[in-house]
Amino acid sequence: MTDWALAVDVGGTKLAAARVREDGTVRVRAQRPTPVTSDGDEIWSVLLSLVDDVTGGELPDRVGVGCGGPMHWPAGEVSPLNIPGWRDFPLRQRLRDRYPDAPVRVHNDAVAMAVGEHWKGAGREARHMLGVVVSTGVGGGLVLDDRTVNGSSGNAGHVGHVVVDPDGPPCACGGQGCLEAIARGPAVVAWAKEHGWTEPAGGAPGQALAESARGGDPVALAAFTRAGRALGIALASVAALLDLDVIVVGGGLANAGALLVGPTLVAFERHAAMEFTRRCRVTVGELGDDAGLVGAAALVLAADRYWPAGAD
Amino acid sequence: MTDWALAVDVGGTKLAAARVREDGTVRVRAQRPTPVTSDGDEIWSVLLSLVDDVTGGELPDRVGVGCGGPMHWPAGEVSPLNIPGWRDFPLRQRLRDRYPDAPVRVHNDAVAMAVGEHWKGAGREARHMLGVVVSTGVGGGLVLDDRTVNGSSGNAGHVGHVVVDPDGPPCACGGQGCLEAIARGPAVVAWAKEHGWTEPAGGAPGQALAESARGGDPVALAAFTRAGRALGIALASVAALLDLDVIVVGGGLANAGALLVGPTLVAFERHAAMEFTRRCRVTVGELGDDAGLVGAAALVLAADRYWPAGAD
Repeated sequence: MTDWALAVDVGGTKLAAARVREDGTVRVRAQRPTPVTSDGDEIWSVLLSLVDDVTGGELPDRVGVGCGGPMHWPAGEVSPLNIPGWRDFPLRQRLRDRYPDAPVRVHNDAVAMAVGEHWKGAGREARHMLGVVVSTGVGGGLVLDDRTVNGSSGNAGHVGHVVVDPDGPPCACGGQGCLEAIARGPAVVAWAKEHGWTEPAGGAPGQALAESARGGDPVALAAFTRAGRALGIALASVAALLDLDVIVVGGGLANAGALLVGPTLVAFERHAAMEFTRRCRVTVGELGDDAGLVGAAALVLAADRYWPAGAD
Repeated sequence: MTDWALAVDVGGTKLAAARVREDGTVRVRAQRPTPVTSDGDEIWSVLLSLVDDVTGGELPDRVGVGCGGPMHWPAGEVSPLNIPGWRDFPLRQRLRDRYPDAPVRVHNDAVAMAVGEHWKGAGREARHMLGVVVSTGVGGGLVLDDRTVNGSSGNAGHVGHVVVDPDGPPCACGGQGCLEAIARGPAVVAWAKEHGWTEPAGGAPGQALAESARGGDPVALAAFTRAGRALGIALASVAALLDLDVIVVGGGLANAGALLVGPTLVAFERHAAMEFTRRCRVTVGELGDDAGLVGAAALVLAADRYWPAGAD
């Protein structure tokens, strides 16, 4: 038996893999851009060669995967919104075929991030935690009573579709005024552009917007304030509903730091006014980009907490 | 050992008690108006005489209680908003002193309602359920994976403080735009009066408003539509966050039936547009006024599901 698990993080822009040791430390990490193609097998073969780089030909005896949703869970048939080449792609079965002696577990990438932060990051002292990923989308994962919450079909944690402005913008989910429709990175950038901010040529627009805001651009600042406020409102709703110890915010947009999190905390404090909701901490993740890999590994390395017995 | 548990339901307007059998059927039910007094011991003595009527002098060997919040849980020191005579009243300890050989368990009355509907009512086929009580306040209780969710301090389930209109009316909790601030019975009546509805003399104003609405009064109809819409928005948020099988709506205002639930369903369908949220049923409770008693009994009769092992 190896002393590590193979962890895989499948996202719309990059594929990452690593060996994660039983103490949660990340070793031999590698990543590649996600191929932009409608050929699912091409994506699969890039993923395999990435995995081979990490395993170095050793057979992993435990495999944990976080992958963009939606997916059929726990079957691990994935249709990541941002990977059009995979629709009902049998990711879990493909990995089982390749590693027939290893348990292979696949969960939503936002759930993996939350699990990683709970196992070894900012939520490690908490029994009741929400992890939020603010990035191209807004996702999340829940740990209650030290156990992952999966819901009826593996979709629990979709905090991005908590309604924060019932008359607000339409959401890609078909609803209206969802947190994600306001706070996802592309929506923040689009709002800024509509209000007169000019995107510089080249580079990542979210980072450019953050730089403008740090430089004092009022429209850029207002764009982050609007997104942060929406996030704070949603988090206050969740804190009231679930009586949490901590909420951990991660993902690319959280890298904007106080630009986003400051207004988030202001709105949270405005709306989370009960004694028990005031006790809930809101904090930024500690594991950064590794949270998803650490959490994917936890699905197999700390399964008593993070993977339900009936889902194998 | 008796074949029944003593169940008690402590509310702001009435105290109820019953023998509940192991199959969940309610026997020997009795109730009294809650004394309006600042003397906590007077309320306690009325409760005791009610309980004696139900037990007929037999010693119950299991006691379950639902009580208005807030409370220190699981200690069962209660400070029901609508019972000013009880502040940190040691309800669980008083009942333990009286029945020293019986387990005594106290939980929030809205949690008891949810548990009752899950155990024997509209949620009995579901693994993942929210129960909502729309009455003088708006409360709730959660059952996930067939287990009560309690949260960090026993306060999980506070769906009344999900934010549905961030710029909306102030809420008694100190927040703003909470579901409860819009949909609690007195708020619905107050909104109708502000918009020109005249409350008839005598009787319960919520029922009078429902009668006006059934008679076609446009302001009364609009008042229920506004409350139902707020409820539907909150329920859509919860369905996205928790991937539920069913949401069960109960409480006094739910007795208005389609006046409230119709607009609730319209708003829920508008905002719960994802495949997994569309699968979540929204329905009215089956147990009516008995839900709280049945659920209180379930805390001791079906404790493996509804009472955590560590909370005795």
